[in-house]
Amino acid sequence: MKIDGVSYRTVWLSEGRVHLLDQNRLPYAVEVMQCGTPAEVAHAISTMVVRGAGAIGATGAYGVAVAALQAPEATFHAQLAHDAELLARTRPTAQNLFYGIQRVLDAVEACGDDLRAAREAAVAAAQAVADEDADACEAIGRHGEGLLEDGMGVATHCNAGWLAFVDWGSALSPIYAAHRGGKRLHVWADETRPRGQGARLTAFELGQEGVPHAVIADGSLGAWMRRGEIQAMIVGSDRIAANGDVANKIGTYMAALAARASGIPFYVAAPTTTIDPDCPSGEHIPIEERSGEELSHTWGWSDEGRFVRVRTTPEGTRCRNLAFDVTPAGLIAGIVTERGVVAPREVGSLRSGG
Amino acid sequence: MKIDGVSYRTVWLSEGRVHLLDQNRLPYAVEVMQCGTPAEVAHAISTMVVRGAGAIGATGAYGVAVAALQAPEATFHAQLAHDAELLARTRPTAQNLFYGIQRVLDAVEACGDDLRAAREAAVAAAQAVADEDADACEAIGRHGEGLLEDGMGVATHCNAGWLAFVDWGSALSPIYAAHRGGKRLHVWADETRPRGQGARLTAFELGQEGVPHAVIADGSLGAWMRRGEIQAMIVGSDRIAANGDVANKIGTYMAALAARASGIPFYVAAPTTTIDPDCPSGEHIPIEERSGEELSHTWGWSDEGRFVRVRTTPEGTRCRNLAFDVTPAGLIAGIVTERGVVAPREVGSLRSGG
Repeated sequence: MKIDGVSYRTVWLSEGRVHLLDQNRLPYAVEVMQCGTPAEVAHAISTMVVRGAGAIGATGAYGVAVAALQAPEATFHAQLAHDAELLARTRPTAQNLFYGIQRVLDAVEACGDDLRAAREAAVAAAQAVADEDADACEAIGRHGEGLLEDGMGVATHCNAGWLAFVDWGSALSPIYAAHRGGKRLHVWADETRPRGQGARLTAFELGQEGVPHAVIADGSLGAWMRRGEIQAMIVGSDRIAANGDVANKIGTYMAALAARASGIPFYVAAPTTTIDPDCPSGEHIPIEERSGEELSHTWGWSDEGRFVRVRTTPEGTRCRNLAFDVTPAGLIAGIVTERGVVAPREVGSLRSGG
Repeated sequence: MKIDGVSYRTVWLSEGRVHLLDQNRLPYAVEVMQCGTPAEVAHAISTMVVRGAGAIGATGAYGVAVAALQAPEATFHAQLAHDAELLARTRPTAQNLFYGIQRVLDAVEACGDDLRAAREAAVAAAQAVADEDADACEAIGRHGEGLLEDGMGVATHCNAGWLAFVDWGSALSPIYAAHRGGKRLHVWADETRPRGQGARLTAFELGQEGVPHAVIADGSLGAWMRRGEIQAMIVGSDRIAANGDVANKIGTYMAALAARASGIPFYVAAPTTTIDPDCPSGEHIPIEERSGEELSHTWGWSDEGRFVRVRTTPEGTRCRNLAFDVTPAGLIAGIVTERGVVAPREVGSLRSGG
């Protein structure tokens, strides 16, 4: 996808370094961060320079590739295992992260003691993770586009656009496909506190692509639904359990309840790499709790054009900050994958059959 | 109630001027704004220097009293009607505002052409509106306290504490009563975007009163409920229709849906002045839409200790900002008034019989 006419992916490997579009700076500035070591990659993931299911997955994969390129011959396998563990510990909920890391580790493993082959295989596997993510997202757009009709109001939560993946996105991919195909949609992007991925990133993406949209408060989604402004809702996912329960950005569950109350179909879009066949249901998905400072402090452009952080709570106020929640399969009308739209209960067979 | 040991009301009349605790500055600074004319009072209401059902009602009443004190003899009644209209147009949803204004107009009306008596009656009526609001809120605390048990997690939304009234508050009054009575409660205050009355004002009030609490993101309330952290929820109201439908700060409806989904009782606390017997149901309540700038821009203390406003959305992004929503009576377990706890369907008779 493009920013001001220039094509980008969210993450790429170049000259042995992982390059990331800095999502803590967007939409205020378009800056590329370079990570030269696995530790730098891990830090970028945990501080959310890169965020979003697929983008984290590809970054994790590239991080292991960098580890393979740098690990000394004598301690190659031990060092690689150490670095992979460091990368995996950054975000506990994201299934794609574990998928991306494991994919590269498997490729290295297959090369036995041939380190030169292992290093090449690591880079190739990471590249494949990224390319397949982009391809899957494009396919999600084709499959999901049919769910959206001309004139619809479509709600989304958080950012599951191309910035959350390598390219195209999951929830926004069907919207982009429909928009490019001439359907007139109006997207309702909720702000997504505490980090404002809807207000900052989804609004930025939709603006770049020319899709009509409005940003609304998270708590107002139900009211806009009751007013008849919204006919469908589509969100991404960070992990899908075998029974179709979906972990996604905090706030998704309440949005799904509101959609159900207004009879609005609630879709989840995700590549099948997001499905965790070993996780029987949502209650088994570990949910990350992040620093309360993400809630007590927010950031943006001041009226004088400076990038500043402000505290919005009284000094010393305790804030609790769950990063994700679980939406039960029963609230979900369909899951849009690169292999088609399926009922939530069918996802387990999709992944195990993949 | 007290701030740093000093007793305050949110609004009072002194030397012919309306005094307001500036709620756009709290919790960062405790400042009193003085309004010397009805137009200044109206501006303070519309810019939310004062906000919250009861506080707006008393401010409207005091505003009419100031109008009565200042209106010239020759055009007294015309000027008073003009100023009352100006005050009433500031916030379309707030029932207490119309109640407070009308109460003072009725007192003036009863004095006929005796202007001196009319002016005295206006001030006395406004004072009565304020005093009765404080008394009603204290009674709400007594009636509502029994709904809260020792050890409970109690959620609230927005600020329906003493800052939203003249004193004590509606939703927080039972919490204060229970806390002072020795019950150990933990309050979950959601942030309440866009203006953050939960993060700023409720957290400030609870901190001043020493009630254990945490601020959470609006979208996380359902997840905390599913985790078993919350056993009751209590909110305020800006207008209650005759059938028990409740208008309150945007986000209340989604909170009520989440409470219902987890089997948690959802209470509304409000003085009977909030009931609009002429409004048959929630769909007849006018809902204010405020400037999108309240969503695109937020404010707080910078790390350097300055009070700054920051933009969190891309430049030019359209934001839609509904200030209130309607929670259907069917989602409400009980309405706590100064006359006791009633079922939503009973509120119509409460007010008409009052």
